[in-house]
Amino acid sequence: MMPTFKLTIGFDGTKFSGWQVQPDRRTVQGAIQDTWQKITGEAVHVTASSRTDAGVHALGQVVGVSSATHLDAEQLHRALNALLPVDVIVKGVEMVTNDFHATYNAIGKRYRYRIYNSRCRPLFERDMVWHVPQMLDTEAMHQAAHVLVGTHDFASFQSAGSERESTVRTISAIEVQRGSGEQGALVEVDVEGNGFLYNMVRIIVGSLVEIGMSRRDKAWLAAALKACDRRQAGRTAPPQGLCLMRVDY
Amino acid sequence: MMPTFKLTIGFDGTKFSGWQVQPDRRTVQGAIQDTWQKITGEAVHVTASSRTDAGVHALGQVVGVSSATHLDAEQLHRALNALLPVDVIVKGVEMVTNDFHATYNAIGKRYRYRIYNSRCRPLFERDMVWHVPQMLDTEAMHQAAHVLVGTHDFASFQSAGSERESTVRTISAIEVQRGSGEQGALVEVDVEGNGFLYNMVRIIVGSLVEIGMSRRDKAWLAAALKACDRRQAGRTAPPQGLCLMRVDY
Repeated sequence: MMPTFKLTIGFDGTKFSGWQVQPDRRTVQGAIQDTWQKITGEAVHVTASSRTDAGVHALGQVVGVSSATHLDAEQLHRALNALLPVDVIVKGVEMVTNDFHATYNAIGKRYRYRIYNSRCRPLFERDMVWHVPQMLDTEAMHQAAHVLVGTHDFASFQSAGSERESTVRTISAIEVQRGSGEQGALVEVDVEGNGFLYNMVRIIVGSLVEIGMSRRDKAWLAAALKACDRRQAGRTAPPQGLCLMRVDY
Repeated sequence: MMPTFKLTIGFDGTKFSGWQVQPDRRTVQGAIQDTWQKITGEAVHVTASSRTDAGVHALGQVVGVSSATHLDAEQLHRALNALLPVDVIVKGVEMVTNDFHATYNAIGKRYRYRIYNSRCRPLFERDMVWHVPQMLDTEAMHQAAHVLVGTHDFASFQSAGSERESTVRTISAIEVQRGSGEQGALVEVDVEGNGFLYNMVRIIVGSLVEIGMSRRDKAWLAAALKACDRRQAGRTAPPQGLCLMRVDY
């Protein structure tokens, strides 16, 4: 049996066409596979806990690789960071048992969505946030978010194009918090759950922003959840605010 | 007399060849002058508190413009932010008296220099920091920096290529501080003074990092200052860590 490695990676998704290899596109999966081949000479297939869309970032994506390499985890860690492009970093490498599968063994994920809530547009943060100029009532967003916590059918919070059998998921926590001091324009939405449907976090954030703008209220969110109909929830927030923070196994 | 406007601007210097207009180069001065012309039809010459090098950033650069425009400060503010490229923002516009000169009237400036002090290379911060992998003793840097506070001849802390008559400047404060929690890898050096020689902040930071690495000590820094000889101070820290935070008039 070939050894299996679990990599924890971060990437700046701005200049990637998402995770999955596509012809003539720069992708995160492609960058890792190409770099692995440079180091070991071996063409590998790497799998991730989930595929991320173009523009989405990660600080704790988990990736699995089965490889015939004789390098150990520490050597791979250093070689990968030396040779990967500047917008991908490896935060950890460990050897795991052969039954490890990055996609199927994940039992929980944590995402952070960043909103830049200021009339003035963002500068350094511009590829990392959704700019919402209208002042948001973050306390109302935080309160309303409780409606979504628990085990529910999240069919209203899923974009077309996914093929998952069940749309039931469990969200263990949602927190909406505004930064303090110099960070007062930054609103962070942290969402933790056992798994997420396609675009689920971005639709949740789009819906919470409707509430923050006082266009909708908590009862609307509860009704949208119950409807199991994508058209009843809010818009899909743009990709660049989203960051995959952690995956648990 | 034409009205004079004082603009406070921020820019991400990563993709600019510095402040000053140069043929076939993308510069901050060029971006502002081009945008002003788009709005008013008028070719203006804008002056800054100081010219910044390629890669250096600003959150509080001050710029002066004399213009025949009939637009008021608020209208100019909105039009500029709507039409400037994404890596330049206008934070404020005010009409000032005709004797205002952004360069000559500045009485104080504050710079921040960011060091990313971690074995792991930076990801999202990579264009905003100097990556120093070796652990820095920031307390030693902070203590040593006091040597430079006050009115001194800073000839040792000036790169060749400047034409200033006097190399005497007053530094009112230098603070070296490490971030806490998630920001523990970030070391910020804040320097405030009445004016700065060419590359002065970057040479100060390069010298303080020598001390942080325990290669040099406070007595060395005092001797380097006294020598009035560029070769006695440390290296010039790279541009992308530097940000002009504020200019006082």
